[in-house]
Amino acid sequence: MASHLNLYRLNHFKMRHGGELDQAILAYETWGELNEKKDNAILILTGLSADSHAASHHQHDMDTAGWWEYMLGPNKAIDSNKWFVICASSLGSCKGSTGPCSPNPISKLPYKFEFPDLTLEDIANSSFDMVKSLGVNKLACVIGPSMGGMSALALILQHHNASHHMINIAAGCHSQPFSTAIRSLQREAILKDVNFNEGNYSSDQWPRQGMKQARKLGMLSYRSAEEWKDRFPRSLRQRPNKPFGIEFPVESYLEHHAENFVHKFDPISYIYLSRAMDWFDAFDYVNENDNPFAQVELTSALIVGAHSDLLFPRAQQQELARLLDDVGCDTQLEITDSIQGHDSFLVDFENYSKIIGEYLSQLRF
Amino acid sequence: MASHLNLYRLNHFKMRHGGELDQAILAYETWGELNEKKDNAILILTGLSADSHAASHHQHDMDTAGWWEYMLGPNKAIDSNKWFVICASSLGSCKGSTGPCSPNPISKLPYKFEFPDLTLEDIANSSFDMVKSLGVNKLACVIGPSMGGMSALALILQHHNASHHMINIAAGCHSQPFSTAIRSLQREAILKDVNFNEGNYSSDQWPRQGMKQARKLGMLSYRSAEEWKDRFPRSLRQRPNKPFGIEFPVESYLEHHAENFVHKFDPISYIYLSRAMDWFDAFDYVNENDNPFAQVELTSALIVGAHSDLLFPRAQQQELARLLDDVGCDTQLEITDSIQGHDSFLVDFENYSKIIGEYLSQLRF
Repeated sequence: MASHLNLYRLNHFKMRHGGELDQAILAYETWGELNEKKDNAILILTGLSADSHAASHHQHDMDTAGWWEYMLGPNKAIDSNKWFVICASSLGSCKGSTGPCSPNPISKLPYKFEFPDLTLEDIANSSFDMVKSLGVNKLACVIGPSMGGMSALALILQHHNASHHMINIAAGCHSQPFSTAIRSLQREAILKDVNFNEGNYSSDQWPRQGMKQARKLGMLSYRSAEEWKDRFPRSLRQRPNKPFGIEFPVESYLEHHAENFVHKFDPISYIYLSRAMDWFDAFDYVNENDNPFAQVELTSALIVGAHSDLLFPRAQQQELARLLDDVGCDTQLEITDSIQGHDSFLVDFENYSKIIGEYLSQLRF
Repeated sequence: MASHLNLYRLNHFKMRHGGELDQAILAYETWGELNEKKDNAILILTGLSADSHAASHHQHDMDTAGWWEYMLGPNKAIDSNKWFVICASSLGSCKGSTGPCSPNPISKLPYKFEFPDLTLEDIANSSFDMVKSLGVNKLACVIGPSMGGMSALALILQHHNASHHMINIAAGCHSQPFSTAIRSLQREAILKDVNFNEGNYSSDQWPRQGMKQARKLGMLSYRSAEEWKDRFPRSLRQRPNKPFGIEFPVESYLEHHAENFVHKFDPISYIYLSRAMDWFDAFDYVNENDNPFAQVELTSALIVGAHSDLLFPRAQQQELARLLDDVGCDTQLEITDSIQGHDSFLVDFENYSKIIGEYLSQLRF
């Protein structure tokens, strides 16, 4: 599997809030072939906890499924027989690309809080540098779900001519206060864990409890009350093995997922990425009441949301679609009836394959 | 103010899950006068963190405002010129009534986890015992918002003839898994705080962080994304005074409320009451598919919900209204357009005064 991972080196990469990274690495994977005209490239910008492994690479039997396995591959909605698809682990993440837990090339010790402020603009810029290194000057399409949706906006707001088309899923022009509040509680749970120790945790002294609490809060905000109502019948209540132990089916579910997550993500990486989401605001690019996308050269866009999404409610996709439409971008808005909340794009194979597949199939290059 | 507080002693009070409380106290307040026929009594059952002080007692200038000040008093929606209104601090709470932080009469030390399992049935039964001690055998109306709404159901399911009428607000036949998940995270934040120390905390070693986290989660679930969108403009972002410090307006708001709450509630009381909410299930009283209210002798009921309530979504008030209607109770269902979420009944003076005032004004006794 390691053979699928490519490393791109960023040299003297300037960060938006100041500071620069030297010898930073972006880990990325690709699917399909870049055509001669180099005009069939799609860039996928990921959600907070995803990595570059969006899908398996079918030629190898031993390859594992990716986080968007149903969506990407030969003859799938994002058809790797037609498109050359690129997906990187975000800068600042802990999945192969340089982030706060990577060694600082000067001190050789992990950056920790010495890592410069991270913004979605930095994630977009570093990915676009990598894309250009592959000989692609303009993307056929940029696709971003969740945090990736805002990163896609960060890309086109900075590089007006970066892509012909965009698919923007479960995102918006910025995070609403409710969504910021959830992320703030997640960050606080990690920061206040005694084992976090101002960033000086180790694998033996890991902020387990904070990471678990953060993940459980995440699960709450990614799904929906509607879905859980049928999924966790009250009749399955078990006797807890200690006072106030696990008793309700939904508690076992959260505990199981939280345990799985604890060591899969670096705590400082998590809070850097989480804050980057709260910082992003498309309206930072213009004066009040102006349309942030006025300069963007996007031929068409597909904006997708789910009516059950608590983190990025449909009003945000409606706003984004209206802003793009107002500047002459051929915009299609789809609000699905998926009940899986913010995570619908990962789970509701049927709805999302169809919408994205149909949109991409009619693009010409 | 202390003069308004009455104490009722429960003797050998049997708890639903086993165990009994001896010499337990219920602290309660009353407004208005009980008439000669003793048929104008209203019992208010409270939400989790409320106390008996639902409103001020106007004859004393020094009296403080209560948690439902706008609703209760002379010529208000719950008119104390007409009704004799009773409100107790819940059994198990820490606001004057006996709870896990009260001294165990045998050991003289605080009960802590020696306090028996607490259910909403126990809260309903202890309150009804107190009501009967005042000479009231049947209430004109029982009113319960939030946890109090489920306690009101616990009352009428056990004592079919306890009340002529019921106003049930922002509640349902049981908690949905989403709502249980939020409360489970609140309990976990308290239980896992190092200062909680298996219940052996002191005022010097207080589980501050756990209580703050629990309160912030509460604030999130009590309000709505819709309300916060306008309330916390992104433009008010401040520079944090330390890395990952408070920066967004919604963070200051949560921090302020959490700080205020930390010492206002006892941590063990909080988790006992919280679990009692998750345990309650009106369907425990019947076989599957039977109507739990079939035996209940309620003349009429007003069921109120808010479309923005995340904790007890309107489908739950719709279900409750349908079940009551099906057994011949004259049922009125009101879903308000209030944007303040679960807390709407505390905040949306206009909507709730009108609905409750009109319902009560047409009751005859």
